[in-house]
Amino acid sequence: MATTPSATRRVFLASSTALAADVWVPRTVKGYTTHEVAGRLAGSLSEVGTSKWDLDTPALCVDLDRLEANIKTMQAAMRRFGLATRPHAKTHRSADIAKLQLAAGAIGVCCAKLGEAEALMPHGIDRICMTTANLSPSKIRRAMQLRKRAPGFVQAVDDERNARDLSAAAQEAGVVADVVVDVAVGTRSGIPAGEGALRLAKLVDTLPGLKLRGLLSYDGGAQHITGFAARKERALANIEANAGTCAAMKKAGLNTEIFSGGGTGTYNIQHLVPGFTDVQVGSYVFMDMQYLAIGREDGQPVYDDFASSLTVVGTVLNNRFPGKLTIDAGSKALTLNVPHAGVIGEPGADYNAGSDEFGVITFKSDPSRAYAMGDRVEMIVPHCDPVVNLYDVMYGIRKDRVERVIPITARGKSQ
Amino acid sequence: MATTPSATRRVFLASSTALAADVWVPRTVKGYTTHEVAGRLAGSLSEVGTSKWDLDTPALCVDLDRLEANIKTMQAAMRRFGLATRPHAKTHRSADIAKLQLAAGAIGVCCAKLGEAEALMPHGIDRICMTTANLSPSKIRRAMQLRKRAPGFVQAVDDERNARDLSAAAQEAGVVADVVVDVAVGTRSGIPAGEGALRLAKLVDTLPGLKLRGLLSYDGGAQHITGFAARKERALANIEANAGTCAAMKKAGLNTEIFSGGGTGTYNIQHLVPGFTDVQVGSYVFMDMQYLAIGREDGQPVYDDFASSLTVVGTVLNNRFPGKLTIDAGSKALTLNVPHAGVIGEPGADYNAGSDEFGVITFKSDPSRAYAMGDRVEMIVPHCDPVVNLYDVMYGIRKDRVERVIPITARGKSQ
Repeated sequence: MATTPSATRRVFLASSTALAADVWVPRTVKGYTTHEVAGRLAGSLSEVGTSKWDLDTPALCVDLDRLEANIKTMQAAMRRFGLATRPHAKTHRSADIAKLQLAAGAIGVCCAKLGEAEALMPHGIDRICMTTANLSPSKIRRAMQLRKRAPGFVQAVDDERNARDLSAAAQEAGVVADVVVDVAVGTRSGIPAGEGALRLAKLVDTLPGLKLRGLLSYDGGAQHITGFAARKERALANIEANAGTCAAMKKAGLNTEIFSGGGTGTYNIQHLVPGFTDVQVGSYVFMDMQYLAIGREDGQPVYDDFASSLTVVGTVLNNRFPGKLTIDAGSKALTLNVPHAGVIGEPGADYNAGSDEFGVITFKSDPSRAYAMGDRVEMIVPHCDPVVNLYDVMYGIRKDRVERVIPITARGKSQ
Repeated sequence: MATTPSATRRVFLASSTALAADVWVPRTVKGYTTHEVAGRLAGSLSEVGTSKWDLDTPALCVDLDRLEANIKTMQAAMRRFGLATRPHAKTHRSADIAKLQLAAGAIGVCCAKLGEAEALMPHGIDRICMTTANLSPSKIRRAMQLRKRAPGFVQAVDDERNARDLSAAAQEAGVVADVVVDVAVGTRSGIPAGEGALRLAKLVDTLPGLKLRGLLSYDGGAQHITGFAARKERALANIEANAGTCAAMKKAGLNTEIFSGGGTGTYNIQHLVPGFTDVQVGSYVFMDMQYLAIGREDGQPVYDDFASSLTVVGTVLNNRFPGKLTIDAGSKALTLNVPHAGVIGEPGADYNAGSDEFGVITFKSDPSRAYAMGDRVEMIVPHCDPVVNLYDVMYGIRKDRVERVIPITARGKSQ
């Protein structure tokens, strides 16, 4: 989600504490490739792994202690709120991380793309809610194949014709397909709350190939509102009509066992929505510069309910020009999302992915240390989802050593 | 390269003619996956391929007639200018397209990343100039392996210590490594023109493991300057000191057989630089919204020296909200580069990749046709390099049918 320049300035201040961590980045680097690291780990799983600082760069790294703590924290919070988690796999696109979430108590995962679901299911991820409607004959046919393989496959529908197409395809495939009605929050996807949505839910309920499971109401726009009070107010106002539709469905005798939505920005707000069942949290596993900026419930500007676990390690290619460093991570490594990547240990620095292959770090004041060519730099990613999608693997790091290489199972599966 | 909002408005006007093409996008769609298309083609190469409009979406498509014409046009222009082409493979990351360029007369290709060179070389692309210095011991060692496999492998150096490291590694690998000095234009990479650069060239010339081949001077900043006159003035001013360094190298008896740089924006300017040998053109094969905006030599605002060949086909997921369409191609399919993607057939529309998975097309005036859910939409990409890097394959289209599936050989090879 793009933010305005003033939002960029806000996050810059807000995230200063997150970036000020006193991090020691050693200079002696070896530069192992993904292939070499995988080979080392395969050779002996008990072998102490490579140092994070010896990885070839740009390298996508996830701190496993923080990742695991984030998953635990979210599950505990949701238990308190009386809701379930149905984490969105669009964030990590990784079977391994989905498994961690399911093992911790998630009731399933969400997928935004059919290709994600197809990639994850062979890894045993079989409780999947597809939050996007499948429209083309091919996608519908493939969705039915997934439903055939996994009774836990549920898909969104927001249109009567599509509901009829799904029902016909389900019958042809010899299954009854589980369906949730996508009730719009905003104007991106879904059918508006109210009469039309209720009519669609009733239609789904009567169609022979479909089984109505409830509704979805994802409010993407509310997730990144800065300031908890404003975020809460808008999130609850936006979803009021949807909660009304849920109640009307219930009153009409329709199944509302699923009323799902929300995300990392509203995880501690959704329980206030009547009838709500589960939250589609995604970014909480990694956090990123965008979420660091939205502010905590107690008014603290840095949103640190969860810890930043996802970083990109880059290498200094040029230190020759005053006040700036060129590094080997540009927009193909960190995207153009704003706020920009945050350079750990350098809260006064600005990273810019103005070039596809190269990033430039500009220092407004003196850098905290001198950088030599070949030195490593570590950065908190701007926005986790599209950054993860640029890499084939992320390195699972524990105490600065590679513990495991985590394939990004559904990398590029945007169809 | 990011541009300012005013540049966005300019390109919007400038590209109107490119987008106004009367394109017929049929509604009946089947949605074949990459896998299915590859299977069909493998089954019978003479089989008439799938229609572009039946591909699963988002689908990256390249019009082969336009691609081939662009390559031919560039070679012909360079012959007129008395320069060679050394096209930059960072744009397409594709062995197949590199082969087309070499077959048309390119003297080699450039790579920005070692991983690109490693991915392309096994496909017979063995004349590679790496325009980024290799700094870490691992990268240096791998570069020497490439040099061992291919005498046509040349790499950039911009630092004395790095030159010594390369020389030592070359000797250890039993090769003499070909090296060009990266002489800076701007402050991103390279060593500033003048005494320091000359001294580095002399050092390279004396080091036992290295063979000096000349110099690089790539001016990324000049490529997208709007207006030919301004672009020409700045490009020539920026490179003046570099040309002086080239002359000084020549005078000192050093090898300057390579004096390489420039790109699609300055392809018709570089021949005015004394001693210049070859142009690192990249985007000309595809063109994109950024290049369409920079203006032609004759003052015409649309830069159409080359034809837009690269598009993304998406599907309309939601047509329910007045004045806008939601499509299945967001920032994971089209990036956040500006100017935004241009919707073919809808010059008055604005595409926005504000969401990772979904794009929104907003119509300022009435759309030229009504869109149903499931309809296809075709878009010119904002900036070709990072968009290509999001996909595993691009579909080679001739007269709206898939003729070949082109693997993006070095997709994600950013290390």
